[in-house]
Amino acid sequence: MVRKMELTHVNEKGVKMVEVGQKEVVFRKAIAKGRIKLKPETIRLIQEGKTKKGNVIASAQIAGILAVKRTWEIIPLCHPIPLTGVDIAFEFGKDYIEATCEVRAYYKTGVEMEALTGVSVALLTIWDMVKAVEKDEKGQYPFTRIEDIRVVEKIKE
Amino acid sequence: MVRKMELTHVNEKGVKMVEVGQKEVVFRKAIAKGRIKLKPETIRLIQEGKTKKGNVIASAQIAGILAVKRTWEIIPLCHPIPLTGVDIAFEFGKDYIEATCEVRAYYKTGVEMEALTGVSVALLTIWDMVKAVEKDEKGQYPFTRIEDIRVVEKIKE
Amino acid sequence: MVRKMELTHVNEKGVKMVEVGQKEVVFRKAIAKGRIKLKPETIRLIQEGKTKKGNVIASAQIAGILAVKRTWEIIPLCHPIPLTGVDIAFEFGKDYIEATCEVRAYYKTGVEMEALTGVSVALLTIWDMVKAVEKDEKGQYPFTRIEDIRVVEKIKE
Amino acid sequence: MVRKMELTHVNEKGVKMVEVGQKEVVFRKAIAKGRIKLKPETIRLIQEGKTKKGNVIASAQIAGILAVKRTWEIIPLCHPIPLTGVDIAFEFGKDYIEATCEVRAYYKTGVEMEALTGVSVALLTIWDMVKAVEKDEKGQYPFTRIEDIRVVEKIKE
Amino acid sequence: MVRKMELTHVNEKGVKMVEVGQKEVVFRKAIAKGRIKLKPETIRLIQEGKTKKGNVIASAQIAGILAVKRTWEIIPLCHPIPLTGVDIAFEFGKDYIEATCEVRAYYKTGVEMEALTGVSVALLTIWDMVKAVEKDEKGQYPFTRIEDIRVVEKIKE
Amino acid sequence: MVRKMELTHVNEKGVKMVEVGQKEVVFRKAIAKGRIKLKPETIRLIQEGKTKKGNVIASAQIAGILAVKRTWEIIPLCHPIPLTGVDIAFEFGKDYIEATCEVRAYYKTGVEMEALTGVSVALLTIWDMVKAVEKDEKGQYPFTRIEDIRVVEKIKE
Repeated sequence: MVRKMELTHVNEKGVKMVEVGQKEVVFRKAIAKGRIKLKPETIRLIQEGKTKKGNVIASAQIAGILAVKRTWEIIPLCHPIPLTGVDIAFEFGKDYIEATCEVRAYYKTGVEMEALTGVSVALLTIWDMVKAVEKDEKGQYPFTRIEDIRVVEKIKE
Repeated sequence: MVRKMELTHVNEKGVKMVEVGQKEVVFRKAIAKGRIKLKPETIRLIQEGKTKKGNVIASAQIAGILAVKRTWEIIPLCHPIPLTGVDIAFEFGKDYIEATCEVRAYYKTGVEMEALTGVSVALLTIWDMVKAVEKDEKGQYPFTRIEDIRVVEKIKE
Repeated sequence: MVRKMELTHVNEKGVKMVEVGQKEVVFRKAIAKGRIKLKPETIRLIQEGKTKKGNVIASAQIAGILAVKRTWEIIPLCHPIPLTGVDIAFEFGKDYIEATCEVRAYYKTGVEMEALTGVSVALLTIWDMVKAVEKDEKGQYPFTRIEDIRVVEKIKE
Repeated sequence: MVRKMELTHVNEKGVKMVEVGQKEVVFRKAIAKGRIKLKPETIRLIQEGKTKKGNVIASAQIAGILAVKRTWEIIPLCHPIPLTGVDIAFEFGKDYIEATCEVRAYYKTGVEMEALTGVSVALLTIWDMVKAVEKDEKGQYPFTRIEDIRVVEKIKE
Repeated sequence: MVRKMELTHVNEKGVKMVEVGQKEVVFRKAIAKGRIKLKPETIRLIQEGKTKKGNVIASAQIAGILAVKRTWEIIPLCHPIPLTGVDIAFEFGKDYIEATCEVRAYYKTGVEMEALTGVSVALLTIWDMVKAVEKDEKGQYPFTRIEDIRVVEKIKE
Repeated sequence: MVRKMELTHVNEKGVKMVEVGQKEVVFRKAIAKGRIKLKPETIRLIQEGKTKKGNVIASAQIAGILAVKRTWEIIPLCHPIPLTGVDIAFEFGKDYIEATCEVRAYYKTGVEMEALTGVSVALLTIWDMVKAVEKDEKGQYPFTRIEDIRVVEKIKE
C-alpha cells in the first residue's frame, strides 16, 4: 500500500479540522502508556496507607478521565467524539509509576489522541500531588520527569 | 533545613486544595522542557515550506498557551493564578522536536505545573498534526513518543 | 429480576468511566425537581414587575440549560450525550421556588444526572441573584436553603 | 442598620455583573453544607472496603473542588475570584452522607456561592457513582434525594 | 510620540502571550458597541409582550457576560483578568438592535477584547434566538447580519 | 408555504432548548463570512514576512476552529453537534481581512451558528493580535471594526 505522505491538517490556507464525514462509524479503541519518574521515597509515601494511595491515584484517574473527554477542547484540531468508555490504571515500579489509559468509541475517527491526553494529564496530576516531596531544598525537581508517552495499541474494527 | 516529608494535598479526609493565603506575592517563573520523537521524514515535512512549519508550530504554541492558562481546570488541585506572560519555543533535532515553555506570574504559589502542562499540550498537538505521516501501514505509532518532560528552572524572587 | 448490587464506577483499580458501547440507542427522558426556600419578601420582589421576574427566572433557566449541556464536564464519570432538548420551568410558592428540569436524548445511557445538574444550577443561580435580600444584617443566610432535589421520572423507550 | 431591599443583579436594562471594584480586599471564608439521602445498603457499600469508599469520596471531593474553581463559569453573574484554599469533607449517617465545603479567598466579594456550588457538585457526583444501587427495578430513584444545602458560616475579616 | 510599529504578539519564534508583569495595576474600562440587522417584523416580535423581549434580551446579556469572563479562553493570547463589573445593554432601531458592553477591572492590561467579545456573543445569541423568523423559505438569511463592532471608549486611570 | 412566525426558543415559561429529536440526520453545511477593517499599515505588517503572516492567520484560524467546536457552550440555546469538518480561510484587501468559515456535520440541526461563531472569534483574534498597531496615541481604535458578519450559504441535503 502506498500512503500519501502529507500533513492532513495543513493546507495552503493554513490549518483546518479535516473532514471525517465520509469515514465509517466503527468500533475504535486506543491504549496509551506513559511514566512518571519519582523518588523511591515518594513512591513509598504514596503506597503507605491505603487511603493516601487511593486518593493520589483516584485524583490522577479522575483528572485523566476528565481530560480524555475534553481532548477536543485541548488539542485544537481534534474532533469531538462520543466516547463510550475510559479506563485509567497505574502500575508501581521502585522509582516510577506507569499509567495506562484505554479509550473506546464507535465513531468515524480514532481515539489515540484521547488516550495520550488521558495519560499525560494523569501523570501531570501525580506530579502536582507530590510536589512537596519531589522538590529539593532549592525548590527544583532534579529527579522528577515524565517519560515514554506512547500509543501501545490502536484498534479499528 | 529539615523539610517535612508529607503529601500536602492529602489529609485524613481525602484530597484538598491547599491554603496559599499566607504565602507572599512574589515574582514566580518556571521553565519546563520536553521532546517528541518523530521520524526524520516527518521533521523534514514540517520544516520544508515555511508556511507549513509555521502552522504546525503555531498550532502547538497556541494550544500550549491556552493549556497553560487552563492548568487549574485540567489539574484538579492547582490554584487559579493570574499569569503575566507565557512563551513557548521549539528546537528541531534530526528525529525530535524539543519544546520549552516559560511561564511568569506575581503570585502566592509557583507556576511549574503551568509550564509542564504547556509543554505537554504543545507536544500532544504536534503529534495530532503529524498523525498521518507517523502511523505505519497498520495504523500504529512505532516511532512516535513524548519524552523527558521536566522542570529545568524554577524561580521565586 | 435480580440486580447485581455493586458500584459500577468503582473497580479494583479505582474509578472508571463505565463502558456503554453495547447499550442500545433509545429515547431517554428524565425529569428532576428541586426547591429553594426564600423569604416571602424575596419572592414578592422577584414577582413584582414583570421585567424583574423575567430576568431572574431567565438567568436561572439559561444557567441551568448551560449546565445540563456541560454535565459531563462537571460530573467526572458522566458520558457526553447528544441532547435533543431541555426545558426548565419554575413554580412559585409563598416562600419557595420549585424548579423542574426535563432533558431528552436518543442515546445509550440515561439523562438523569443532566436533569439533576440543571435543577441544581438553576437554583444556585436564583440564590446568587437574591443574595442581597436573603442575607441578614450579619451577612448570614438563616432562611435560604436548597431542598428536595430528586428525579421524578425517568423514561427509556 | 437599614439595608436597601433590592435585587442587586437586576436593573432596568436587565441583568448585570455588579461592580465590586470599590469593595476592599479582605479575608473571606464561607462554609456550606448539604446532604444526600441514600439507602443504608448503599452507605454500607461505600464504607465497606477502604479502597471503594476512598474512591467514591475522592471523586466527589475532586469534582467539588473543580466546581468551586469554575463557579464563575457555572453561575452567570458571579465574579472570578482568586481562591486561596478549598476543603471538602464528608460525614456518614445511617442513610445519608453530609458534605461540608469550606472556601477561602482574599478578595472584594464573598465566596458563599463557591461553597454552595462545591457542595452541590460533590453530592451530585456521589449520586452519579451509586446510581446502580439506588435505582429500583423500574429504573427510578424512590429514596435518593439531595437536601438541606445551606450556608452555615460566612466570614469577612 | 513615536510608537514602535510592530506586532507585540509575534516574535521570531512564533506567537507568545506578552509579558504584562511590569505594567501597573490601574483602573481600566472599555466600552464596545455593535449591531445586528434584523427584519422589522422580528424586532416587533421581540418587543411585543414584555416576557418575550425580556427573555431574548436577558439571554443575550447573560451569554455576553459569560463570554466576557471567558475571553482569555476564547481569544488565545489574552490574559486572564480579575474583572470587577460588566454591563450589557441594548437599544432598538426599526431594523436593528445595538448592543453596548462595558467592562471594568483594576489590572495591568486593558479590557477592550473583553468588551468586544461580550458584544459579539450577545449579538450572536440574538441571532440564534430569532433564526426561525429571520430565515427565508429556502432557509437562508438574506437580511440578517452583524455590523459595526467597535471600541467606543477605552479608559486607563 | 406559510411559515409560522414565532420565536422557537421562547415559550410562556421563558427560554428553552428546542427539541430536535424528531428531525432527521442529514448532511448540513454552513458558510459564514465577515470582515475586520484595519489600517493599510497593519495589513502590510501582517503580510510582510511569511512567518509573521502565517502566525497571525494561524492564530485566528485555530481560535476560530476551537470556538466553532464550543459554540454550544458560548451560545446558550445551541445544541451540541458532532461536527465532521471545519475550514477557516482569509482574504486580504487593502484595508481589511475577510474571514470565511465553513462548518459541516451530519445531524438533526443546522450549523450556521457554528460558522458565525467561528468567523466572529477569528476576527476578534486578529484584532487582539494587532492591537499595538491599530491603537492611536490615545489608546483608542478609530479605524478598527468588525463588519458584515453573515451567512452566505446554508445547505441541508
